[in-house]
Amino acid sequence: MDTRGDVYDHNCPSRLIADHATSRWGTLVLARLLGGGLRFGELRREVAGVSEKMLAQTLQALERDGLVHREVHPVIPPRVDYSLTPLGTQIAERISGLFTWIEDNLPSLVAAQRAYDARRAENV
Amino acid sequence: MDTRGDVYDHNCPSRLIADHATSRWGTLVLARLLGGGLRFGELRREVAGVSEKMLAQTLQALERDGLVHREVHPVIPPRVDYSLTPLGTQIAERISGLFTWIEDNLPSLVAAQRAYDARRAENV
Repeated sequence: MDTRGDVYDHNCPSRLIADHATSRWGTLVLARLLGGGLRFGELRREVAGVSEKMLAQTLQALERDGLVHREVHPVIPPRVDYSLTPLGTQIAERISGLFTWIEDNLPSLVAAQRAYDARRAENV
Repeated sequence: MDTRGDVYDHNCPSRLIADHATSRWGTLVLARLLGGGLRFGELRREVAGVSEKMLAQTLQALERDGLVHREVHPVIPPRVDYSLTPLGTQIAERISGLFTWIEDNLPSLVAAQRAYDARRAENV
C-alpha cells in the first residue's frame, strides 16, 4: 500500500482504524495507557463502565491495528500486560490532547449547553 | 462550574461531550466543517454513509455543546447553514490532526494488521 488514506472513504481501511481509535472505549484505553502498561484487570478498573467483553474486543482491535502490544507472562496464574506500541503512543498523545482540551474547556462547554437549553425552553 | 473535567468519571459532563465529539459521525462532521460552513444536504453528501436522522442528531448534540453554530436563513425554501463556533474550531483542529495522523500512517497500520492476521493464521 503506497497511497495516503482517506477517512471519509467508506472503503478505505483508515476509516475502520479511525472508528477503533475514536470509539468510546478505544479513546479511553489508549489515553490511559500513555501512563504506562497495565494488566487487563487494572485497565478495567481505570476505564470505569467498560464490560469485560467490550474491553477485550477493544484491546484486540487496537492490537491488530498495531497500536497496543499484548505481552503474556508465563507465570501462574498467567499475567497479561497491555502497553502502547510506538505507533500507539503517537495516536494516544493526540487523543489525550483532545481529552485535555475538553476537560480544560468544560466550563465554556457546559455554559453553551445551558444557554441552548434556555433558548429551547423559551421557544416551547 | 469552576472545576476541571475528568473524562474518566462517568458522572462528569466532559464524558458525554467527549462521546459526542469522538462519535463516528461527530468526528467526521467536525473535521469537515473546518473547511467552512455547509448546508445540511452538503454535509450529508460529504460525510458519506450517515443517515438523515443520525446527521440531525449529531448536529444537534454538537450545537448544544457549543461546538457547531446553526444559522437559519429566512428564504424560500429555508436554508440552514452549519459552521464551527470558535470552540468547535479548536476541537475540530485536534480531531483533524488525529485523522491526518491515521491517513499518513496508514501503510504502517495496515502492515500491523497483516502481521497480526498472519500470526493468528499460524496459531490456528
